[in-house]
Amino acid sequence: MEQQTDTKVEQKTIRTGLIDCDVHPYPRSTEEIRSYMKKPWRDRYNGGGRGFFGNPVQGDRVDARPPQGGSSGSDPDFLRKQLIDEYGHAYAILMPRAFCNLHPDPDFGTAIAAAYNDWLADTWLSKYNHDGVFKGSITVNTQDPLAAAREIERWAGHPHFVQVMTDSGARSPFGQREYYPIYEACEKFGLPFAIHPGTDGMGINTQPSPGYPTHYIEWHTCLSLGFQSHLVSFMTEGVFERFPGFKIVLVEGGVSWLAPLMWRLDAEYKALRSEVPWLKRRPTEYLRDHVRITSQPLERPDKDDHLLQIFDMMDAEHLLMFSSDYPHWDFDSPTRAFPKLPEALRRRIFFENALEFYKL
Amino acid sequence: MEQQTDTKVEQKTIRTGLIDCDVHPYPRSTEEIRSYMKKPWRDRYNGGGRGFFGNPVQGDRVDARPPQGGSSGSDPDFLRKQLIDEYGHAYAILMPRAFCNLHPDPDFGTAIAAAYNDWLADTWLSKYNHDGVFKGSITVNTQDPLAAAREIERWAGHPHFVQVMTDSGARSPFGQREYYPIYEACEKFGLPFAIHPGTDGMGINTQPSPGYPTHYIEWHTCLSLGFQSHLVSFMTEGVFERFPGFKIVLVEGGVSWLAPLMWRLDAEYKALRSEVPWLKRRPTEYLRDHVRITSQPLERPDKDDHLLQIFDMMDAEHLLMFSSDYPHWDFDSPTRAFPKLPEALRRRIFFENALEFYKL
Repeated sequence: MEQQTDTKVEQKTIRTGLIDCDVHPYPRSTEEIRSYMKKPWRDRYNGGGRGFFGNPVQGDRVDARPPQGGSSGSDPDFLRKQLIDEYGHAYAILMPRAFCNLHPDPDFGTAIAAAYNDWLADTWLSKYNHDGVFKGSITVNTQDPLAAAREIERWAGHPHFVQVMTDSGARSPFGQREYYPIYEACEKFGLPFAIHPGTDGMGINTQPSPGYPTHYIEWHTCLSLGFQSHLVSFMTEGVFERFPGFKIVLVEGGVSWLAPLMWRLDAEYKALRSEVPWLKRRPTEYLRDHVRITSQPLERPDKDDHLLQIFDMMDAEHLLMFSSDYPHWDFDSPTRAFPKLPEALRRRIFFENALEFYKL
Repeated sequence: MEQQTDTKVEQKTIRTGLIDCDVHPYPRSTEEIRSYMKKPWRDRYNGGGRGFFGNPVQGDRVDARPPQGGSSGSDPDFLRKQLIDEYGHAYAILMPRAFCNLHPDPDFGTAIAAAYNDWLADTWLSKYNHDGVFKGSITVNTQDPLAAAREIERWAGHPHFVQVMTDSGARSPFGQREYYPIYEACEKFGLPFAIHPGTDGMGINTQPSPGYPTHYIEWHTCLSLGFQSHLVSFMTEGVFERFPGFKIVLVEGGVSWLAPLMWRLDAEYKALRSEVPWLKRRPTEYLRDHVRITSQPLERPDKDDHLLQIFDMMDAEHLLMFSSDYPHWDFDSPTRAFPKLPEALRRRIFFENALEFYKL
């Protein structure tokens, strides 16, 4: 629970504590984002377009609403108190929720992404970041990969942006070649590419299931399936061979499916490798160099041993990074979400994997 | 390896050996199916419409082509020699490949289904079934559920049809209510509903991934994702509460994903049960009464222990049924596909689970 007060952003300080790879900062109002936009986007943007699958119970933790008012996750002081200080976070990786890659007009989506990045840089990554605890994600609109690459370049070298991020919704799996300008920029500037649930089946994006689900519980359970498609696409298209320095992180897409999916892909590869001759290794062998996965929402089988076995199968020691998803309703507490772990494994998952991956 | 020669179809004989839950019989020619159709379907049907994802290596086992000519799986004598006698099958559950639920015109799809059923009943289930080893599946066109229910009724009581089957491709997940006439008929006649890969993203069906995959290896790996969507839909829509006698079997959709998916759904249910008040139990608790899963293509992690752990997690002792997928390229041999299993578990998977499920 050390207190880190150094504000010199260039200085690399080894912090102890934990690193939380999925924390959501929100603007205090839609106007705050709009103020970073030029016309005509400023007039058009209303913060909407977030789809029809609202959580029927509660979208956020009921206790996360700041006492001073405003939406959950919009008050850095309250977030710091309720999350950072409470659990001794060394860093929180901020994942803004721009929902920008679903608009028919790619310029609109790109304008939203840019406004979110300007806003994050001005607020949570500077004005509110006296202790340097907040690390940010560069939001990009995957519907215009060339513009996305320019947006990455605009922020490259910023001391607090540590990755590029997108929502999982898409019109084609993320391994396909139209996206490569994004990955080229990520590789060039040493920024991982994070995928977070959102915009699946919304706007111009396809719904990654056989037709639309009916209920939120169904939609939310199946969010992991789109992630599985994206990962297989990255693998089979050979993205990690084309961009050897490129890394991805799968955020809030589920955990326990990883090993079963990769076993299946490895088996297919054994028979069908002639179709993907650019792969020089078994698909599973790319994971440690190129893929990380965050923990929330962590599956919790009735038997803790089963989860520990899954961790062994999926190489959680090297691939899994803790995330809380604060302030959302299905927040995973650092102290209660996991079963008892061997201390070395706990430290890898809660701290070291992210420290190394993000070069913090 | 007992020889069973009794041909009285009404008599229930307890056979020993193994039960293979996914064997593909093929017509000797397209004309054979066409001969069971009336006009205008007879003129229109050409056996095509099977999509553009051809296996780039080999669609069938190279040694499965009958010496007398014809396509793999079209010669019952050769199949009996190469599969039934070779491994001592007690029963082979036949899964014809009609690809009927992808046509814009539902009447065409229904005509194809009916022709396949007539053909199967006349050939593999009678003329070629002197030893009673073949058990059949009633193909239905899910795009016209009322017609599908009539087709089920047409065959109900047949001594050798033991289930209803569909391809996995769809325009909406299989838990949704437009399909209920099918499930009502299945329940009424005590026939399980089997889902087999096929027609995903073909014709009028949606592609259950974020856009189309590029390669066969990607498409084939991700086939399991559509199955996961369908299963979650069955669960969250409460199909097993609406039709308490209704059972499903997931054929060739993968195995190892089952426990991780159900853990996730159980966790969601804990928080969101108010959205699905018709569920009286945790989703996982419906599995044993309502769901079976066949083994091929069985994932094979590097460590056999990992697979045995997965079997424990997923209740394979009660849910998993052996299948070979003969004569397809990725055939799982009864003697080589599995690691060494405890004898009681082996017998459940290779024989008893299917014996009980199909009431053979």
